[in-house]
Amino acid sequence: MKKITTPTLLLDEAKCKQNISRMVEKAQRNRVKLRPHFKTHQSAQVGEWFREQGVEAITVSSLQMASYFAHHGWTDILVAIPVNLLEIDTINKLAAKVKLHLVVVNMEAISVLEQLLLQPVYIWVKIDTGYQRTGVLPHNNTDLDPMMQHLFESGKFYFEGFLAHDGHTYKQTDRDAVKAIHNTTVYLLHLVRSRYTHLFPDILLSIGDTPSCSMLENVAAVDEIRPGNFVFYDLTQQHIGSCTYQQIAVCMACPVIARHPERNQLILYGGSVHFSKDSLITEDDTVIYGQVVALTADGWSAPVDGLKLVSLSQEHGVVSASEEQFRNYEVGDLLYVLPVHSCLTAVAMKRYLTLEGEWLEHLAGLPVGSFN
Amino acid sequence: MKKITTPTLLLDEAKCKQNISRMVEKAQRNRVKLRPHFKTHQSAQVGEWFREQGVEAITVSSLQMASYFAHHGWTDILVAIPVNLLEIDTINKLAAKVKLHLVVVNMEAISVLEQLLLQPVYIWVKIDTGYQRTGVLPHNNTDLDPMMQHLFESGKFYFEGFLAHDGHTYKQTDRDAVKAIHNTTVYLLHLVRSRYTHLFPDILLSIGDTPSCSMLENVAAVDEIRPGNFVFYDLTQQHIGSCTYQQIAVCMACPVIARHPERNQLILYGGSVHFSKDSLITEDDTVIYGQVVALTADGWSAPVDGLKLVSLSQEHGVVSASEEQFRNYEVGDLLYVLPVHSCLTAVAMKRYLTLEGEWLEHLAGLPVGSFN
Repeated sequence: MKKITTPTLLLDEAKCKQNISRMVEKAQRNRVKLRPHFKTHQSAQVGEWFREQGVEAITVSSLQMASYFAHHGWTDILVAIPVNLLEIDTINKLAAKVKLHLVVVNMEAISVLEQLLLQPVYIWVKIDTGYQRTGVLPHNNTDLDPMMQHLFESGKFYFEGFLAHDGHTYKQTDRDAVKAIHNTTVYLLHLVRSRYTHLFPDILLSIGDTPSCSMLENVAAVDEIRPGNFVFYDLTQQHIGSCTYQQIAVCMACPVIARHPERNQLILYGGSVHFSKDSLITEDDTVIYGQVVALTADGWSAPVDGLKLVSLSQEHGVVSASEEQFRNYEVGDLLYVLPVHSCLTAVAMKRYLTLEGEWLEHLAGLPVGSFN
Repeated sequence: MKKITTPTLLLDEAKCKQNISRMVEKAQRNRVKLRPHFKTHQSAQVGEWFREQGVEAITVSSLQMASYFAHHGWTDILVAIPVNLLEIDTINKLAAKVKLHLVVVNMEAISVLEQLLLQPVYIWVKIDTGYQRTGVLPHNNTDLDPMMQHLFESGKFYFEGFLAHDGHTYKQTDRDAVKAIHNTTVYLLHLVRSRYTHLFPDILLSIGDTPSCSMLENVAAVDEIRPGNFVFYDLTQQHIGSCTYQQIAVCMACPVIARHPERNQLILYGGSVHFSKDSLITEDDTVIYGQVVALTADGWSAPVDGLKLVSLSQEHGVVSASEEQFRNYEVGDLLYVLPVHSCLTAVAMKRYLTLEGEWLEHLAGLPVGSFN
């Protein structure tokens, strides 16, 4: 491997490709379309690994990401955030070259788009099935009826279907709870669909969170799934039950810069600007920012007992160690840490180093303003 | 101003320059050297505003930042983090062209540096005066004595003095508490200094947090102050009491992408990849990620009552509004938000737009690997 001297995000290509193929196969078994969310990796090269496994349609969370992946040959792109009307110029540019799918949650967006679009776009109406972040409530016919009527009458839109994001599965830690959330969402989406089949006979349903798509075998009640985090997974997903430790495909390498025997703590060069600030509460009520693993011949181990990343400031990390583990590390060593939230860690780190020593790109590592 | 269409970090140049001159003048009144921490802005252009006010020596928190500012003509640079021995090549490169100051907290670092340094560097020994992140404990003569003896005997080091960082002032909200912390630190640093004046007659003392340097008029008991955040300030500093709302010099502009009248919430395009994940607990026990202000003719107002950024996901922000305030915002509007932690928001946003419409650089916005 390349000589690592500063905090570096390692990527285990084999694990990552297995994570991809596992989801591709689940989608095939369920006869649903996999439209993976690329906001987790934001990497042209990782995108190619999906393409190699037959994936053709993707999800992103900004028009900048859409432009980036369009540049890299993706032609069927859903921007899964309520459309930002201020970016109409980018929308028109993108819609001229790819199948651009936008999300709307209100009539205002539909009206403005209708006025300003230069060519038709594919439209999804987002339904709030319980996460309560955004989306139209499923029984809110007062808003939905005119929206759907307008989408039907206008020549600017190809209405695709109803879309939901069960972000509340992230608060769960058992399969039955995730299944209950999924079933509710499926019930509500079917209900909404049935109300508008007289306008649109082929309404699609799309859902998207990694916990549901990982923990449930049966996701056949929808037409499309849009998980993203599964490409890498992380400690949050392991905590929820979406993955095993062994499936986590990214890991931070950080230099040890100080040792404090009086309190068995190791100080890492690696802080919130590297890991991001997301944390996790463990069973013994400790707040952690990462778990330490050991490097092995072909990757890394499961978390080592007695070592936890317990605090982050801008550039420093503090690892609490058992007395036994503390003795194993010297100043100048590298310490390897599984991240709590791989999406944010990847954004912060801006590139990946594979175990084979190859640097992979991340959109955040390009000069600022790229694809804006 | 330039047309803003995506989340954008605004910088009020006038406020920023006032923040700089206020600290420059305080340092002058106290006859202490101001060695500002540039990790907050990480911008060559903002650096020039310091230079215009007579600042010649700076603090950074990584060798990458040191290389960046050395490239921009800074010649006296302290890297205020225990030295990362793995970056010895960068250290040697930098030490050949600038007055490079490094921080050590143990003998291991001194020994390795002595072996591998190609030219002498300036050395500070970090003392842990109560923050308990890193540093040698002030009474730990077992470690300090041989370290100091070694620094004295070796030809590779110019020993400068003892340095502390009172990061625990960030947990305070009144001046007396900050003063107590500062007084303790001063007492302990003087104690340590007195023990080694027989080896080094001119030991300097350096401290560095924004709360102490902002809230206390008298900081004359040390030789050098290294505050950083004061250049922009933020809601955290306002909460502590380091600044007024009016002194906060950066503000996020974010498009409104959805409205939810059923719960008086506005959805912003602007999430944790833009703001970072740092939060603050208000007096009424609400966790907030920012406070909304209104744009004025010459900048922005104090926070508007009845609007709070209460939740962030990767690209979405949720603003809770009073019924009255909710009516003032439409989809497609821009909303202006003071950040909780300006250092991390600036790293995430990677550049600044001044109120005069000029883009200013941030090191994080250069292509990844720049100055590594």
